Amino acid sequence: MEAKLRARHPDFDPTFRDQLQALLAWRRDVRRFRRDALPQGTIERLIEIACLSPSVGLSEPWRFVIVEDQARRAAIRDCFGACNQDALRQQEPDRASLYARLKLSGLDDAPSQVAVFADHATAQGHGLGRLTMPATLDYSVAIAIHTLWLAARAEGIGVGWVSILDPARVAEILDVPQGWTFIGHLCVGYPEEEADLPALQRQGWERRHPSAGVVIYR
Amino acid sequence: MEAKLRARHPDFDPTFRDQLQALLAWRRDVRRFRRDALPQGTIERLIEIACLSPSVGLSEPWRFVIVEDQARRAAIRDCFGACNQDALRQQEPDRASLYARLKLSGLDDAPSQVAVFADHATAQGHGLGRLTMPATLDYSVAIAIHTLWLAARAEGIGVGWVSILDPARVAEILDVPQGWTFIGHLCVGYPEEEADLPALQRQGWERRHPSAGVVIYR
Repeated sequence: MEAKLRARHPDFDPTFRDQLQALLAWRRDVRRFRRDALPQGTIERLIEIACLSPSVGLSEPWRFVIVEDQARRAAIRDCFGACNQDALRQQEPDRASLYARLKLSGLDDAPSQVAVFADHATAQGHGLGRLTMPATLDYSVAIAIHTLWLAARAEGIGVGWVSILDPARVAEILDVPQGWTFIGHLCVGYPEEEADLPALQRQGWERRHPSAGVVIYR
Repeated sequence: MEAKLRARHPDFDPTFRDQLQALLAWRRDVRRFRRDALPQGTIERLIEIACLSPSVGLSEPWRFVIVEDQARRAAIRDCFGACNQDALRQQEPDRASLYARLKLSGLDDAPSQVAVFADHATAQGHGLGRLTMPATLDYSVAIAIHTLWLAARAEGIGVGWVSILDPARVAEILDVPQGWTFIGHLCVGYPEEEADLPALQRQGWERRHPSAGVVIYR
């Protein structure tokens, strides 16, 4: 068995590793989308790739809601608008005007939208690995979103993760089964631009810091 | 600015996309490690790549604890042992013997260990994006772990995520700053074998399901 597996396993060379780093460096949280639609079936194909992600106890708790209905999309935009107004009011005075100028979602333009949930009621995985850390179910879903994001970017497709939303309201708008917990709402489409710096850094909100500052030894 | 960015952005071709899918398919949660050490500086380099991950509000809340002290490693092994015994006792009777046979961590053999935390006290990002969804801070860290995992696998290095631990006890063992929340403990090293099926599937615990079953339309 092991020999058979070894015989088939792929080797990744330095060229691939460089490209993988470029992919990670050029993956962006996209807020400015072109309005042209993605080819039919693109989202389903990206979701299939996302399902290769790790999950606690092989629970595969990710649930993808492809949001097409215009009334539901409008309700989600309204939810974002209300939550973003609340957030603006809570900004420190010296940052409020900068906050107000940030473009924080592509909900108006992105041709595709996917809301992603974690199924807390799933029996799959028989609870393995999450007795002391139940949130690992949610982490598994966050990682599946990341996988979809990378696979999309490798095709020139941008993803923007909207978190300025009321999770209970989103679940209500989308009429999802009981036990599904909202993790993130994704805008998906062709980006208006490419960049290797985060939008929030280009807009002066925050900057990246060197990795050495986040490592300690014990 | 945009023209300059466009001029530099990488193009990813079908060969790269195929290799990326192979990477996702052959990334495993590794529990069987060879004992030989990784080259000096490997973990730090992988962490640097992980810091390219997306984070809510560019908060970069990931904190990496490289665990080298033998007494601390032993304490974490003990914590795993106790939590795993509890989990075994809670198995359904017909699954307990299968559970007992599973190898669920590489803590005994992996040459490197990294505990990963989310800094809930960070001011970075100024709270952007997480007012209604504070757990996005933790999701950002889970995604950084995933990035490290993929970068490692692309170099032939295996990662195993141990979640059968008491988070408060791990924070205590590693004496981390107040406000750091434990997300996962990583075993890192060269894997004993490669595989494109999850270990839990090969051992009969659970199996993968088709992605069509996790998609709904609204």
